[in-house]
Amino acid sequence: MGKSNKHQEYTIATLGSHSALQILKGAKDEGFKTLIISTKDRETFYKRFKFIDEIVTVKNYSEYSKIEGHLRQKNAILVPHGSFVAYLGSENNKKIKIPYFGNKAVLDWEGDRQMQRQWLQEAHINVPRQFDDVEDVTYPVIVKTYGAAGGKGYFYARDKQDFKTKVKDLKDHRFVIQEYVIGVTLYIHYFYSPFTKEVEILSMDRRYETNVDGLGRIPLHGQQVLDIQPSYVVVGNQPLILRESLLPEAYAMGERVVKAAEKLIGGKGLFGPFCIETVITPDMEFVAMEISCRIVAGTSIYIGGSPYSDLVYDEPMSTGRRIARELKNAINENKLEMVLD
Amino acid sequence: MGKSNKHQEYTIATLGSHSALQILKGAKDEGFKTLIISTKDRETFYKRFKFIDEIVTVKNYSEYSKIEGHLRQKNAILVPHGSFVAYLGSENNKKIKIPYFGNKAVLDWEGDRQMQRQWLQEAHINVPRQFDDVEDVTYPVIVKTYGAAGGKGYFYARDKQDFKTKVKDLKDHRFVIQEYVIGVTLYIHYFYSPFTKEVEILSMDRRYETNVDGLGRIPLHGQQVLDIQPSYVVVGNQPLILRESLLPEAYAMGERVVKAAEKLIGGKGLFGPFCIETVITPDMEFVAMEISCRIVAGTSIYIGGSPYSDLVYDEPMSTGRRIARELKNAINENKLEMVLD
Amino acid sequence: MGKSNKHQEYTIATLGSHSALQILKGAKDEGFKTLIISTKDRETFYKRFKFIDEIVTVKNYSEYSKIEGHLRQKNAILVPHGSFVAYLGSENNKKIKIPYFGNKAVLDWEGDRQMQRQWLQEAHINVPRQFDDVEDVTYPVIVKTYGAAGGKGYFYARDKQDFKTKVKDLKDHRFVIQEYVIGVTLYIHYFYSPFTKEVEILSMDRRYETNVDGLGRIPLHGQQVLDIQPSYVVVGNQPLILRESLLPEAYAMGERVVKAAEKLIGGKGLFGPFCIETVITPDMEFVAMEISCRIVAGTSIYIGGSPYSDLVYDEPMSTGRRIARELKNAINENKLEMVLD
Repeated sequence: MGKSNKHQEYTIATLGSHSALQILKGAKDEGFKTLIISTKDRETFYKRFKFIDEIVTVKNYSEYSKIEGHLRQKNAILVPHGSFVAYLGSENNKKIKIPYFGNKAVLDWEGDRQMQRQWLQEAHINVPRQFDDVEDVTYPVIVKTYGAAGGKGYFYARDKQDFKTKVKDLKDHRFVIQEYVIGVTLYIHYFYSPFTKEVEILSMDRRYETNVDGLGRIPLHGQQVLDIQPSYVVVGNQPLILRESLLPEAYAMGERVVKAAEKLIGGKGLFGPFCIETVITPDMEFVAMEISCRIVAGTSIYIGGSPYSDLVYDEPMSTGRRIARELKNAINENKLEMVLD
Repeated sequence: MGKSNKHQEYTIATLGSHSALQILKGAKDEGFKTLIISTKDRETFYKRFKFIDEIVTVKNYSEYSKIEGHLRQKNAILVPHGSFVAYLGSENNKKIKIPYFGNKAVLDWEGDRQMQRQWLQEAHINVPRQFDDVEDVTYPVIVKTYGAAGGKGYFYARDKQDFKTKVKDLKDHRFVIQEYVIGVTLYIHYFYSPFTKEVEILSMDRRYETNVDGLGRIPLHGQQVLDIQPSYVVVGNQPLILRESLLPEAYAMGERVVKAAEKLIGGKGLFGPFCIETVITPDMEFVAMEISCRIVAGTSIYIGGSPYSDLVYDEPMSTGRRIARELKNAINENKLEMVLD
Repeated sequence: MGKSNKHQEYTIATLGSHSALQILKGAKDEGFKTLIISTKDRETFYKRFKFIDEIVTVKNYSEYSKIEGHLRQKNAILVPHGSFVAYLGSENNKKIKIPYFGNKAVLDWEGDRQMQRQWLQEAHINVPRQFDDVEDVTYPVIVKTYGAAGGKGYFYARDKQDFKTKVKDLKDHRFVIQEYVIGVTLYIHYFYSPFTKEVEILSMDRRYETNVDGLGRIPLHGQQVLDIQPSYVVVGNQPLILRESLLPEAYAMGERVVKAAEKLIGGKGLFGPFCIETVITPDMEFVAMEISCRIVAGTSIYIGGSPYSDLVYDEPMSTGRRIARELKNAINENKLEMVLD
């Protein structure tokens, strides 16, 4: 089409975990070179995939800065995912010097439970009731530590006694106490492009968590002989779709979050992939438990496309590929700086 | 292929809700013009989708008759879905004057719980035990009002006391009391064509209902401190497949329902998409909770095709697209009257 | 490509049940002729599918030997699935004289719960604690008979009394008593090719079992009035994906199982499709409940491809099609004997 193909001189790079396969498959499908930074123990694993052009191994991710020169030489753009903060830490993320897809200023808002809550409220999105004083609590509750990831660092407390026992394990971790919202979980995978100024919904999932998603299979009489403590460790994801009459609000929530980010976060605001993690109550209200401001793992269900992306794109459009498409457009239209930090 | 393309002069139209996106995407894929009738508040939402050629906004759906002239001018065929009766009412559905895909006589059979039951029994399909006298009830039961839609208007009663408390809320609504069938839910998406005289299974789903599909995640000790009333509000759908050895009976049920409709309903009987909503018991029996005689929302999981449609079609064949394909064939073979009412 | 097309002279044949549709659809997509051996009552059902070239009907599967001459004439290769042992019996499986995809020596290891356990342990895969002495049991437990299939022949016991009552029903069946592992189930669909010497993961599923997957929807107060006995009858399958950080171990388990088979089973070891059926615990450990050494029913979710096969193949690659691809390669490279028994 006479279009520029400058993007073919760039390498999409990411850390070897989380949704790296999806990101690099998408990058390859859009014509980029691809590179993965992997610990030694996962090297054999990532070698299986032919769409990964280069594997750079490190002893551990704290060594990241040592390989930055190499990445720069490769004309690399880093695409972050949910393990970046876990592996590099929030501060080291900000110190990344090579081109980074996304706005690092968002990290502070995402990482702090109070700021995240403020942001969601600014966007007029329901959040669970939160208890500041342990004496005021209506049980059951979910207690969440700051920096909990992948479902670890959560606990459920059915009453005051239960809370007191379990809170000891947190030691000096900061935490919040939230009402346990009764309903069903649904995670909405958004993408906002500063070029089109449109919020897209690319797909949805529910997390598959051990052991809570196995509890329902144990009958009452079985649970009576076991004092099971529910845990919320995410080990997989399941596909689902949302009732069409709730879709307009799902889109509107995404737009309001982007708008609120413009106001609160500044800089380039929020762009690229993000996810609002909701519980839907019986009166069909969304309650947002969290917002993730980057690609979430559940999008990997849709490497071959989703019902939502199929409505819009003629090709299988995963979130990973959508990121690559965005970078490709940005490069070929000389607007790369608009989506980098 | 020298085939006629007369269908390109027609417009597929539907109301903006339920499975409208799927219906119109399928229509566009088959070469039709597309039109959505939407309330003002959903206009921005439906504008996102390029496969929708025209949006006709109404203040509310009761205004439908006012736009019928415009629809006629557009050479429109209305494709009904689950929100037609909810939005227009059964009587207004029957008054629709422009071409309507389906047999309106089916509406009475679908809408009346006793007639539906008679129809299923005529088709030799198991139905849940129903209690005519409150004194005879074996608990637990599900109580369903007439006209309950989207999972609202149901309640679960664990015992007589529970029933008495909850039945008060129904006021003068008609209702039925059914045994609570213990098993797993599975919804089968059929399509019957009067041209091929074949029943197809296009896909399957299970509904994702709040709060019941979240209850299993609350452990026994959590439920003890909460007197949770289960609710069955459908907010999404999840994909699944059926054991192959149960598929022959799944097809046979569809065929028997079509045959029973011929006998009971008359006119053109049942054709196009329908859904039998089953619970499968541990002895692998299907028990039909309901039959829906039009496209169901769960089919929207499969906008990109399903394992079942992939067995038969070389292209992604959603139920929405299958409807459009049927209309296209009907138009181009001058048999349109066979599938309209 | 100048490649040989000798495989087009072969017929892929299988029994009419389990995953036959997927196997034969895959065979047709790869260019084979296809044949199904079906009981009379399923003939109309299998006739629906145009990718099945020939249906050979039998009164019942014990008549298999009578049609073997016909199969030989057709140049047939039998692809076994989970119903082969159920329908023909293990001994008759071994007596099959026409080409059979797989190593029949594996049947003994798969069919005997103790040998299967030894194999998994040899592969350094966690297995559930097993109790040899009824007096030593820590409840709850799952009791599994030898030869239990499709989830029948299992029972759950919450305590000693419960065990004693239920064990009577087993009469003289052999059984094992295993700890009830609390976590979530995940079934991994592998394929090992002796040509590439690579273990592939093609897809994953969780089984949909009646009634256990319906229990969670009954609230505590509902379960109190019912003494529900959980049952594990598989009636369907649901798609899911695994957390990427657990994928390396998922691949490694598959490789260790293949390696252990080389040592223990001998002959051609384990090749083709197999499945490790795991429970994932809250500390993210896989515990293998079982290994199935042939195509499993859950793969039929992915007739149009899976997120995992989409990473590797440019076409929709189900396990059924992967088997056909393997046979096609074997035939055209004159190595057929490497994958037959």
